[in-house]
Amino acid sequence: MEQEQQVMSNKQIILKDYVVGFPKESDMILKTSETINLKLPQGCSNGVLVKNLYLSCDPYMRMRMTRTEGSYVDSFTPGSSTSHRLKLTVVTIVEAVSDLIFATLQPITGYGVAKVLESGHANFKKGDLIWGFTGWEEYSIINAPEGLFKIEHTDVPLSYYTGILGMPGMTAYIGFYDICAPKKGEYVFVSAASGAVGQLVGQFAKLSGCYVVGSAGTKEKVDLLKNKFGFDEAFNYKEEQDLDAVLKRYFPEGIDIYFENVGGKMLDAVLLNMRLNGRISVCGMISQYNLEQGEGVRNLLTLITKRVRMQGFIVSDHYHKYPKYLEMIIPLIKQGTINYIEDIVEGLENAPAALIGLFSGNNVGKQVVVVARE
Amino acid sequence: MEQEQQVMSNKQIILKDYVVGFPKESDMILKTSETINLKLPQGCSNGVLVKNLYLSCDPYMRMRMTRTEGSYVDSFTPGSSTSHRLKLTVVTIVEAVSDLIFATLQPITGYGVAKVLESGHANFKKGDLIWGFTGWEEYSIINAPEGLFKIEHTDVPLSYYTGILGMPGMTAYIGFYDICAPKKGEYVFVSAASGAVGQLVGQFAKLSGCYVVGSAGTKEKVDLLKNKFGFDEAFNYKEEQDLDAVLKRYFPEGIDIYFENVGGKMLDAVLLNMRLNGRISVCGMISQYNLEQGEGVRNLLTLITKRVRMQGFIVSDHYHKYPKYLEMIIPLIKQGTINYIEDIVEGLENAPAALIGLFSGNNVGKQVVVVARE
Repeated sequence: MEQEQQVMSNKQIILKDYVVGFPKESDMILKTSETINLKLPQGCSNGVLVKNLYLSCDPYMRMRMTRTEGSYVDSFTPGSSTSHRLKLTVVTIVEAVSDLIFATLQPITGYGVAKVLESGHANFKKGDLIWGFTGWEEYSIINAPEGLFKIEHTDVPLSYYTGILGMPGMTAYIGFYDICAPKKGEYVFVSAASGAVGQLVGQFAKLSGCYVVGSAGTKEKVDLLKNKFGFDEAFNYKEEQDLDAVLKRYFPEGIDIYFENVGGKMLDAVLLNMRLNGRISVCGMISQYNLEQGEGVRNLLTLITKRVRMQGFIVSDHYHKYPKYLEMIIPLIKQGTINYIEDIVEGLENAPAALIGLFSGNNVGKQVVVVARE
Repeated sequence: MEQEQQVMSNKQIILKDYVVGFPKESDMILKTSETINLKLPQGCSNGVLVKNLYLSCDPYMRMRMTRTEGSYVDSFTPGSSTSHRLKLTVVTIVEAVSDLIFATLQPITGYGVAKVLESGHANFKKGDLIWGFTGWEEYSIINAPEGLFKIEHTDVPLSYYTGILGMPGMTAYIGFYDICAPKKGEYVFVSAASGAVGQLVGQFAKLSGCYVVGSAGTKEKVDLLKNKFGFDEAFNYKEEQDLDAVLKRYFPEGIDIYFENVGGKMLDAVLLNMRLNGRISVCGMISQYNLEQGEGVRNLLTLITKRVRMQGFIVSDHYHKYPKYLEMIIPLIKQGTINYIEDIVEGLENAPAALIGLFSGNNVGKQVVVVARE
């Protein structure tokens, strides 16, 4: 059977080398492959070829820029590191070596929304929209598409599948409802509260009848928290000398639930303010990712005196609950009960700046990169 | 009705003043009241008068030597602090002010075993043996004896009710079985493993079919762990430069369960070695109690990457399970399946040295003070 052989170039974002400290835009390069055949390669009979539409910038990606072993995610494969050039990532991407379709350089991978151009897998067909792990490039071959989610609801912004309807949404849902087990009237604190996850946690807390305070790093974000997301109170942590004092001001009765996105000094201050039988959902520690050695947390004795449970989690362990989450969240979006703010950057070439911008808080809301709109 | 009025003296251990840093023997004084009437005072109709037999030295008592507010235990009332002289402790002891029976100075309080001399409470009668909160003195009036446990099994050493059959036993039981939820074949690490709690946790772990390693601070204790308590391995943490390396040596597969008794550097090293879905039962942090500022713990990011649950607890929340514990532990003691080592010091006058000895690890096993044997 004769197939159309479309010859294209493929722009990719490659990590130059492992990063120490704060990542820079120049740690990544944009590379254009000379020619690729836009078809599934031989021997990839279960894979799908996709066109990437929206890419998700997420803080955990910083960990993949470091050479790590035994973490829950593999390091990215840096372009300059020849010893690692042939290593396959554990994610569902294969940068195929056959057919000269893709270069041996491996792009950064991450969550994204894509359109299926060709499918060798029974679950997917040409034209399907999916979200899940893909490459930071225009076209990707996804070798094990079982890990992808087919997008069924298209009457919401497609980019939402990098955020409220994707990994961050599920993170907020699992981390708040399952890990924190909130009760009406409880006192909830969310750090990085205007981010992709935090803005949802705050709104879920209000839906649960909790009192919720968020911290963020600019006046604009603090205003969003109070006026757009309905937090009871919010503060700019960068303007506070004494985090313990500000928490005591907003939580004179103490904190029942802390949704941890930042770590370090903030966690230490929160520990001093936890209530009896408090819960800390440890979702992320963005303040620590660029440090070679984490900041010391000194107030862990509170875990005993206040019988606190501190629970780390990884959302991908919980994806079997995604249909249940969709059932809850889709009506809330359509009714306008839940708001979601995105910070959308146009063009793959702007993805590195968008990604590193997360670590200085440049983004307002969920950081998305548009590769193509359809 | 005429009652016998026995006139005695009453030796008491008084905390001189709040302690900063490492406690010294001289922070406590032995005081002998001139005369007391050995009877329940007027207006104490629900109380009991007891003769103290065995006193328990426990690490948490260090926290009560510091002026604290909002902790789960009140500070002791220091003798030299006039502003605090009249404050009643929240524990079940009243140093009665009526009848000149007891001085206004308040002794240290803690767990102990005692004999009831006179009872105004329906649950207790003269001659009963009890364990629970009492005073560091020869005779105590316990105003709210509902918190005391009546001793039913006397065919075991009475001093065991300060240890394996008292608070430390329940701590090991709840902290290991309930908080850690052990499964057969799991890898368990116990710090301060020869102490009142640790020696039991190790033996419970073996009964549960786990592999268990303990750390302690002398060769003698390490030998006890391996030869008396049946730990699979044990090491002297004072002889190790690199705690991470030693844990990797004993746990090449990582640690499923950490029973935390020490905090600080050890916790930091353990975090680097936790396995997926690991549990940390936060029972105590003895290495931190004498520090004005806790050591910084830098590796909390592992809570996320390994989905670790870290849970603090206070045993007194769980005392309703004591009968169930006794049902399990009494036969194990009688069959010789479980061993328990005590470090017994004679005489109330030696109690201060025994208590502060905990913080340099002088005790081998559960530290008990004998006030009287019957």
